[in-house]
Amino acid sequence: MNPALSLAPRPTPPGPDRAAEALAPFVRRHLPGVEAALAAALPSPVGLPPTLDAATREALGVEGRPGSRWRPLLTLAAAQATGGDPLAALPVAVAVELTHTASLVLDDLPSMDDADQRRGRSSTHRQVGPGGAILLAVSLLARSAELLGALPARGGRLSAEWGEAFGLSGMAGGQAVDLTGTFAGGGAARRLHRRKTTALSAFAVRAGAVAVGAPEPVALGLSRFGRDLGWAYQLADDAEDWKEDARLGRGPGGRSPRRQSLRVLEGALRRMRELPGLSAQGVLLMEALARQTAGFPQNPGGRKWA
Amino acid sequence: MNPALSLAPRPTPPGPDRAAEALAPFVRRHLPGVEAALAAALPSPVGLPPTLDAATREALGVEGRPGSRWRPLLTLAAAQATGGDPLAALPVAVAVELTHTASLVLDDLPSMDDADQRRGRSSTHRQVGPGGAILLAVSLLARSAELLGALPARGGRLSAEWGEAFGLSGMAGGQAVDLTGTFAGGGAARRLHRRKTTALSAFAVRAGAVAVGAPEPVALGLSRFGRDLGWAYQLADDAEDWKEDARLGRGPGGRSPRRQSLRVLEGALRRMRELPGLSAQGVLLMEALARQTAGFPQNPGGRKWA
Repeated sequence: MNPALSLAPRPTPPGPDRAAEALAPFVRRHLPGVEAALAAALPSPVGLPPTLDAATREALGVEGRPGSRWRPLLTLAAAQATGGDPLAALPVAVAVELTHTASLVLDDLPSMDDADQRRGRSSTHRQVGPGGAILLAVSLLARSAELLGALPARGGRLSAEWGEAFGLSGMAGGQAVDLTGTFAGGGAARRLHRRKTTALSAFAVRAGAVAVGAPEPVALGLSRFGRDLGWAYQLADDAEDWKEDARLGRGPGGRSPRRQSLRVLEGALRRMRELPGLSAQGVLLMEALARQTAGFPQNPGGRKWA
Repeated sequence: MNPALSLAPRPTPPGPDRAAEALAPFVRRHLPGVEAALAAALPSPVGLPPTLDAATREALGVEGRPGSRWRPLLTLAAAQATGGDPLAALPVAVAVELTHTASLVLDDLPSMDDADQRRGRSSTHRQVGPGGAILLAVSLLARSAELLGALPARGGRLSAEWGEAFGLSGMAGGQAVDLTGTFAGGGAARRLHRRKTTALSAFAVRAGAVAVGAPEPVALGLSRFGRDLGWAYQLADDAEDWKEDARLGRGPGGRSPRRQSLRVLEGALRRMRELPGLSAQGVLLMEALARQTAGFPQNPGGRKWA
């Protein structure tokens, strides 16, 4: 929509401060529920090797250091922004975090990034071997399907969209391009490569809205917001690596991706604010989550909410 | 149900010959559709490394030697047996075969069974490396979620049941017990270990019926039939290994599991025939598929249908 042609009054961009103010009570109210649901998400069947159970709890951050949980919080915020009850989207939020965790466990494998550590502890395959880590990741995906499929009325649709998000044209395809290094080859491969990061954040925002019955045009707009936010997040992450490399006097040099990250984020926020039918409070929440997620200077606490 | 108390006339067990006769036209009619749907199931997004695409086609048996397809055929037969249109269950049948293929690709990995060959060709990880094989398997699962979730009316329920089948209390949990060798430890672990094989065959039969709206008691009975058939199949497979080992003068000795496999199969068939509301033709089809699947002497062709 060309803003010059719009007859509706333009909302004033609320700015980082008001957004951060809106976020604190939302996080206090919903983060404990997300953590509790994650802790209960993967009950261990009788007979399962106990090491696998312990590694699952650690991978999910139920024990040890938890993740920032920005994806599940965004899912709940999207549900609220479209006029729904965030609690109705809690199974979606949990499925999103389980799927994210599965992708981390797989990315760390010796045959992928070969990372020994994750969040300051041994990575999953260092605890249970690569075979155990693969089965754990697969089980996290399986449980996501159970949670999404069981949602009343929209379980089928959400399962199908989730499958698309982590499949060949989404996370798995992007990781395949990453693994083979073919993203240097051309635009299509580069675009697919981005989906390694953007497909799940797009699903996280969109599915929160779909779960509470948001109409498709709004869901589509939120999907784009989630995608752009995922991309801004990736660029901010790359900027951290760039800074570290520069400090150590190595790396590719050139310009830090931080400015590009900021540009992508501001564009994503501007378009999100223009979406029809979102509550002002919901817009503020999503803006605050987006700003903290991309780790910008106005939020020196970075990815901490409390 | 105690047969002595039943007032309904007992159906005469049709026997292997009539069952085999019923099967041939069913296979001629539906196997080409299964093969075509499998060939179309995993379209390659633009930008994907082409080696992954080729390995996917080979893993699915779309090129090279196809699998026996007994699981998807059973799905279609279950749909027909409960009075539905087998074609309405085709996406379920395809999802079942994709999930089965994903499990084979993962089982062959160096960190699992470390198998270099599958169906007489290089296993997937020998073609695209362990990382590529893992992403391929994950993509097969993702596509299964898409197919199941998109089914009208029952997509959510089928996605949820599918997640349960391949998760910690199903295939993945069973494989975890297998990997760690903890099945020797006790009954619960042994029962979980069996689900490595039985969870998917139970889902294959049950989901065919659910997809066409079969009532829950029938679906439950078919689930048990699928589970028992999967177990008979596993025992028949073990019997082949036992024979090979005996021929080479090694292996654990003792008695071949063949007799136990036959006993499990006949019990499964007897209970399946007693289920209410199945068409006589559907019962014959499922019996024929079950007998050929478990590879019994009366079907020297083994797992070939044509």
